[in-house]
Amino acid sequence: MQDLKSDKVESPASLTGLPSYLMMRITHAYKQSLHEKLKPIGLNMISTRIVVSLKMFQEMTVSELCVHAIAEQPTMSRALDKLEGDGIVERRVSEEDHRARAVRLTEKGAGYVEKILPGMLGLNEKLMQDVPEADRVVFMRTLLKVLENADGRD
Amino acid sequence: MQDLKSDKVESPASLTGLPSYLMMRITHAYKQSLHEKLKPIGLNMISTRIVVSLKMFQEMTVSELCVHAIAEQPTMSRALDKLEGDGIVERRVSEEDHRARAVRLTEKGAGYVEKILPGMLGLNEKLMQDVPEADRVVFMRTLLKVLENADGRD
Repeated sequence: MQDLKSDKVESPASLTGLPSYLMMRITHAYKQSLHEKLKPIGLNMISTRIVVSLKMFQEMTVSELCVHAIAEQPTMSRALDKLEGDGIVERRVSEEDHRARAVRLTEKGAGYVEKILPGMLGLNEKLMQDVPEADRVVFMRTLLKVLENADGRD
Repeated sequence: MQDLKSDKVESPASLTGLPSYLMMRITHAYKQSLHEKLKPIGLNMISTRIVVSLKMFQEMTVSELCVHAIAEQPTMSRALDKLEGDGIVERRVSEEDHRARAVRLTEKGAGYVEKILPGMLGLNEKLMQDVPEADRVVFMRTLLKVLENADGRD
């Protein structure tokens, strides 16, 4: 068996030379840690992403939620039905565009954010532990650029 | 509706200030693009990760594959059964540890790697497009550190 810590294979034939590989490993581990933290709160992963996205953007259409809370439309609609039934979100006519329907957090929903956010921010701080401030700046700026590239059409 | 491109909410209350959010958006878009490229090849996502991991490490135990090809043991075992049935991988006694069983690519499996790898490397290059070389160095180094942090126990 090879020593998996060493990097004997030349890049780009090395997995650790692939940004996609590293980011998939990181997000997989992050989701597992977050799942543990969410258990006592009783929200699943997509509900958590919806609730946090709504906290940050206040009011969103379903299409916007699909992008930011990362789900396809049918999954998103089912998740929103459940959250609406539980009194965590409400759908109503948008304040800015009266033809559009917007999703907002209820007061109860805002209470969930208060429970979720500290754990989520804590996990993110753990991810960045011991990364020097100068590297953090480059890292975050590059992630934004990479997201732009990832979203761009071929 | 808020302008979603602007970043009116103060960090860390901003999604784009959360490394986990950016990486999840990126990996989601990457997986969708890769899925498109894999369609004509006829391998699903986990099979692709297994095949590419084996190409890079040559010989791996099932536990090692779970880490690097990112799946839990039952899912991994089912995927390996399928790949073995299709003549893409073979399981045999490890050359380095005669008590262990190791997974390797067959010649047919190595042929699949040749079809997959160019698309995968191309997508990774697209992710990093227009990122200056100096930033790439910091980005890759930071991803490795973040993965180490993500894998660390609380």
